Amino acid sequence: MNRARDIYPPDRVSLREVGLRDGLQMVRRFPATAAKVEWLRREHAAGVRHFELGSFLPANRMPQFADIRELIAEAARLPGAHSAALALNERGLRDALETGPGEIVCVVSATEAHSQANMRRTRAAAIELVARAAELAGESARRPIVNVGIAMAFGCSITGAVAPAEVLRLAEACLKAGADMVSVADTVGYGAPAQVAAMCREIGALCGDAPFVVHLHDTRGLGLANAAAALDAGCRILDGSLCGLGGCPFAPGATGNVVFEDLVYLCERQGFATGIALDRLVAVREIAAAEMPDEPLHGAIARAGPPSLPDWRA
Amino acid sequence: MNRARDIYPPDRVSLREVGLRDGLQMVRRFPATAAKVEWLRREHAAGVRHFELGSFLPANRMPQFADIRELIAEAARLPGAHSAALALNERGLRDALETGPGEIVCVVSATEAHSQANMRRTRAAAIELVARAAELAGESARRPIVNVGIAMAFGCSITGAVAPAEVLRLAEACLKAGADMVSVADTVGYGAPAQVAAMCREIGALCGDAPFVVHLHDTRGLGLANAAAALDAGCRILDGSLCGLGGCPFAPGATGNVVFEDLVYLCERQGFATGIALDRLVAVREIAAAEMPDEPLHGAIARAGPPSLPDWRA
Repeated sequence: MNRARDIYPPDRVSLREVGLRDGLQMVRRFPATAAKVEWLRREHAAGVRHFELGSFLPANRMPQFADIRELIAEAARLPGAHSAALALNERGLRDALETGPGEIVCVVSATEAHSQANMRRTRAAAIELVARAAELAGESARRPIVNVGIAMAFGCSITGAVAPAEVLRLAEACLKAGADMVSVADTVGYGAPAQVAAMCREIGALCGDAPFVVHLHDTRGLGLANAAAALDAGCRILDGSLCGLGGCPFAPGATGNVVFEDLVYLCERQGFATGIALDRLVAVREIAAAEMPDEPLHGAIARAGPPSLPDWRA
Repeated sequence: MNRARDIYPPDRVSLREVGLRDGLQMVRRFPATAAKVEWLRREHAAGVRHFELGSFLPANRMPQFADIRELIAEAARLPGAHSAALALNERGLRDALETGPGEIVCVVSATEAHSQANMRRTRAAAIELVARAAELAGESARRPIVNVGIAMAFGCSITGAVAPAEVLRLAEACLKAGADMVSVADTVGYGAPAQVAAMCREIGALCGDAPFVVHLHDTRGLGLANAAAALDAGCRILDGSLCGLGGCPFAPGATGNVVFEDLVYLCERQGFATGIALDRLVAVREIAAAEMPDEPLHGAIARAGPPSLPDWRA
């Protein structure tokens, strides 16, 4: 069986909280390390188990991720918590393997133009890094799983429409290069429900035993509609960020990642138990509010609460 | 063939703009009549054809609807525009029939408790008014169609869960009483996609040739996910309000009706041509912003725009 299946069981929904990574990618002011640790602990206490905690990048370029090692160490102390971190070059990869998150996330762009604009390398070079990650991870003591996020998988704000066949080709190349799982990312919120559902069916067939993730942004309001379509089409791993943090550089003022709390609510209403206590999760927002007072915080459940029904979970 | 089918053809999606009715139900300050006329004209120019324009109620109780007659007269001058207005008692019904909108909307609550709280009458009495509306409409010169909105059809904030069988029973009683069409309303935003889809399949089977509407609120963030599920399950008529106007008395600060602009975007992306020019529709928001400066205006497309693709419509 695929090793990632121990961490993402096929028979239930797993929700990855990417607020401390994607959510902080663009914020002007970021939380103190102690606040991030509290965020992580309190989300864990609420039942969250899958955390993307940051990126292994030079601290002078991305100071918001300078404390990635402390966060991974903290996650290792929390029973059942699984930590993931991005590694975008060989140096980051070596740093990640020394630190030991449970999952290393590499990124491959769906389009050559975005690959160059975002990471100044070809897609082929990005896939070579995936092969290197898989090789080094396999040789390392902690043997983290390797997850590859395919950015712009539902359309690219630089080049426009993206053919699903191209995404599938890249996903297949990543799996062949040794990735344990792949993630299709709607980086700029171009996806729509029927499109997301079709992709899920195709990538699910391609992946077979390997898990696949759908990573959605709510830029154009379809985040939860796309998540519902993904669940309907067999997706069992979804990303979201607390408060919907994570703006889009191409749409000023737009919302960011799909709101994690609202995603939990959707899953529960659709009959997928998440193991997450919604009220305790919503309460963690106070950390984001206190640490990033200028950041718009999104979320319908935080505003309105779940329905006043004793048994609103399906 | 059911008469309402001339107005709501079965082979395409019809979107009802309820911003001037449901959208203004709770606002503190409301647009001037001239601004409403402009709102209506400009939405018509953008391609909108179905408008719910207000309610026939005493002007001292609901001053925001005091100009309902002018708006209906204005709609009558716009080629292809179809106007609807609420009538909640015999007096309102007579006023509506004198004025002559294309559609009279009656309301029946899904629960006895909400019926009493909202309209101080039993559900049976509300259905009697439907019968009276159908009778008088049939005898009137303009012969408006009669649409019955079933409030709290997906759950009631007073009594909790609502059995779908109860909604179907009420819908059937309304059709038997002479209603031309029915509308299932998620008044307090309790619905979830699978629940909405199941309702659409059942109500569609019950209605046969009679059209049915799904009226959604975005209180808990699932408005567009529920709309996508409704479309998937055969619904072809959806309500929305410009800027998502229409707060919920039971959830302070919560969003209101599903955002009309975002609903247009969803439909187009799912392959349903609406005939509505999204950019021209979004521009109408400036009227709402100018006339109701204190009102929160919602909407993702207004913030982020559609994808930068020449052919984003499916």
